[in-house]
Amino acid sequence: MQIICAQYIISGGHEIPLIDSAIVVENGKILDMGAKDDIVSRYPLAEIIDFGDSIIFPGLVNAHTHASMTIFRGLADDLPLMTWLENYIFPVERHLKPEWVYWGAKLAIAEMLRSGITLFADMYLFEEEVIKAVEETGIRATLGEGLFDFPSPNYGPLEKGLALTEKLLKDYAGHPRIKVMVCPHAAYTCSPDTLKAAAAIAERYDTLIHIHLSETKDEVALIKARYGQTPPFHLDSLGLLNERLLVAHAVQLTDEEIELLAKRQVKVAHCPESNLKLGSGVAPVPALLEAGVCVGIGTDGPASNNDLDLIGEMRSAALIQKGLTFDPTKLPAKDALNMATSLGAKALGWPELGRLVKDSPADLAVIKLSSSHLTPCYDPLSILVYSARAGDVTDVMVAGEFIMRDGRILTFDEEEAKKKVFEISQEIKTLLAGQN
Amino acid sequence: MQIICAQYIISGGHEIPLIDSAIVVENGKILDMGAKDDIVSRYPLAEIIDFGDSIIFPGLVNAHTHASMTIFRGLADDLPLMTWLENYIFPVERHLKPEWVYWGAKLAIAEMLRSGITLFADMYLFEEEVIKAVEETGIRATLGEGLFDFPSPNYGPLEKGLALTEKLLKDYAGHPRIKVMVCPHAAYTCSPDTLKAAAAIAERYDTLIHIHLSETKDEVALIKARYGQTPPFHLDSLGLLNERLLVAHAVQLTDEEIELLAKRQVKVAHCPESNLKLGSGVAPVPALLEAGVCVGIGTDGPASNNDLDLIGEMRSAALIQKGLTFDPTKLPAKDALNMATSLGAKALGWPELGRLVKDSPADLAVIKLSSSHLTPCYDPLSILVYSARAGDVTDVMVAGEFIMRDGRILTFDEEEAKKKVFEISQEIKTLLAGQN
Repeated sequence: MQIICAQYIISGGHEIPLIDSAIVVENGKILDMGAKDDIVSRYPLAEIIDFGDSIIFPGLVNAHTHASMTIFRGLADDLPLMTWLENYIFPVERHLKPEWVYWGAKLAIAEMLRSGITLFADMYLFEEEVIKAVEETGIRATLGEGLFDFPSPNYGPLEKGLALTEKLLKDYAGHPRIKVMVCPHAAYTCSPDTLKAAAAIAERYDTLIHIHLSETKDEVALIKARYGQTPPFHLDSLGLLNERLLVAHAVQLTDEEIELLAKRQVKVAHCPESNLKLGSGVAPVPALLEAGVCVGIGTDGPASNNDLDLIGEMRSAALIQKGLTFDPTKLPAKDALNMATSLGAKALGWPELGRLVKDSPADLAVIKLSSSHLTPCYDPLSILVYSARAGDVTDVMVAGEFIMRDGRILTFDEEEAKKKVFEISQEIKTLLAGQN
Repeated sequence: MQIICAQYIISGGHEIPLIDSAIVVENGKILDMGAKDDIVSRYPLAEIIDFGDSIIFPGLVNAHTHASMTIFRGLADDLPLMTWLENYIFPVERHLKPEWVYWGAKLAIAEMLRSGITLFADMYLFEEEVIKAVEETGIRATLGEGLFDFPSPNYGPLEKGLALTEKLLKDYAGHPRIKVMVCPHAAYTCSPDTLKAAAAIAERYDTLIHIHLSETKDEVALIKARYGQTPPFHLDSLGLLNERLLVAHAVQLTDEEIELLAKRQVKVAHCPESNLKLGSGVAPVPALLEAGVCVGIGTDGPASNNDLDLIGEMRSAALIQKGLTFDPTKLPAKDALNMATSLGAKALGWPELGRLVKDSPADLAVIKLSSSHLTPCYDPLSILVYSARAGDVTDVMVAGEFIMRDGRILTFDEEEAKKKVFEISQEIKTLLAGQN
């Protein structure tokens, strides 16, 4: 049994931050919470970990990424989407190796832990390698193998991808830190039959479907030209729009589509920085939230962001909406944090996560207030959302276990992951040089 | 004589980053540059400082801030501008003390150095205290006392503010690291006579004028109602629009006004994050640059940002323009860095700064590439603009002197500044509690 305390505890869910309070952790859960003095006297045998001049907050949830794409970070920027994909990403992905995905994911997990992330949604290729990285590192994830109609460098033809998804669903059923979802890539890369097959598996195994939706104007135009309907209505006609569906991006939406997503209880992963950097636009987040849609925040892959910093992403999510609506009260800090914690957790199938309350799993992160840029602290919520950065996170706990203590990752060798990804980047450079 | 080298040197000004190169520093300037091996053999007696797996880049220029407002960081957010000013900032500023400004500036300088900033533009009250902080800390600044028609807690009536400005101009003429400018606050707080008096002083002393301009729609409407013209045309009719003028924000501009600013060679300090956070909007930066306007990047005050991180600000400047124009090629990394270095330096009256070239003053910063979020490094420019954060800066040199080495500030006691600002924040809390 451990008592964890700090000057401030942000329990999440729009609650006012607690001062000089403590959390009692036992068997991976929060057994009790309260004023520090009271808690210490009521649990005299517990180990006390006092973070002092720090903020304890719920572990952040990265609602959409392709973690292993750390191997492509900064490979090319400032290019039209198709040039970037066709001249850089696709030629290398055709040669993708399982070990690249493994080490890329491990480096990504190091970076995510350093941003206070304790749960992430992942869709990529060779997803078993990501699962291996998640198992070894102690983080949580909801993930699945990317499915599309063209041949995959991992599984080959689509049928094998569907079979692989079913295998993963069986193998990891009931895993304490991993949930498998069905991941058809997008409506423009998956035929209606593929989408229906994906939906059928998700229903059979009672799990989530994760897909990219209405990311760009071009995507909307293409789906409309091909199927006579915009992406949300197209998916609805195929029976995919329901409470199982987690859509990434949702940038190009009409009011009618927002209503439809709300009615069908679809979840959204909002990726503000990727949407800006790739020139996709800005998702109508306030309207989605007002309509009652569950919206989490994602970094998207590190090749199109170019980091996995969810603290920065919360801030961007808040700032961009204020600027575009000319209204500084839009998307206040408490809403941004709620999206990055509770709402994200719910969207990823972990409704018990994202808040620090009695009986919830002990997934939390700690920020030290000692840096100049975090001084003074009038309001810990403001400091967390508007002034803090990933580098300020000192400690991370998942399911009651510390994965990072005082800036050091405990569960794996971060240096090894950096070294391996550096070596992979040299291989990728050689590959690209050979193509040109 | 020192030889400074690293794996990458970004010399700035759209030059391709150098690999395994070195800079020779003597008497505060760059004596020579070239391939590391060659430089080392040609200057055998020089001390060699090898930063290894790092990026050396030109010191960044913060083109607009109110540094001392660190004392108000996070005091209130997510509020309408007038509520924030009238209920929080103004009531406290009425009681502003010189020592608050001094310690606030010192903390701000610590934070700015940690973001790689070596030069900043400042406008606030009790500006002599900021000058004291600049002198002691070794950073560079272009700064001036804020002037407006209502009584100042520092100098009282306006005439005394103008006299103070003249005194500062005389006292610091020829200072190696400080330039004084004339700072009428804005067209809505300064009468035409005040603006003309400010312009006359600037002309007499051959120095810059710094003013807030066209920040919000409300400001434009107010000036139009009061004077029958929008802010740029209003200033032009008073003779203020010329190569001496540095305007902050320039958010709400028409095409005609952009042409006017270009024709008059007015300089702009673009503050993307503050403009978003306060709901002001997004400045038309690509159009300004295309018209030939010199545009630097500023953080604005830390009370409306809420940090002084110019690396993050570069990134925000680039991302927001891509997102709003649906064009990922807009404002590429090289333009963002150029704004944050050369263009900013020129705008602040230091055209010799902002690039690492032979004969330029040795103002530079260093980022270590060892962190997970900076791995791998395909392109140091991409890493600096799109992946790095303030916390990655390890070393800062101004005029050939190291002010920060290996994460430690050498010229002053950063801990003392934090402690003092914490104490000031307690005083401010008491003050505000007494008001309510």
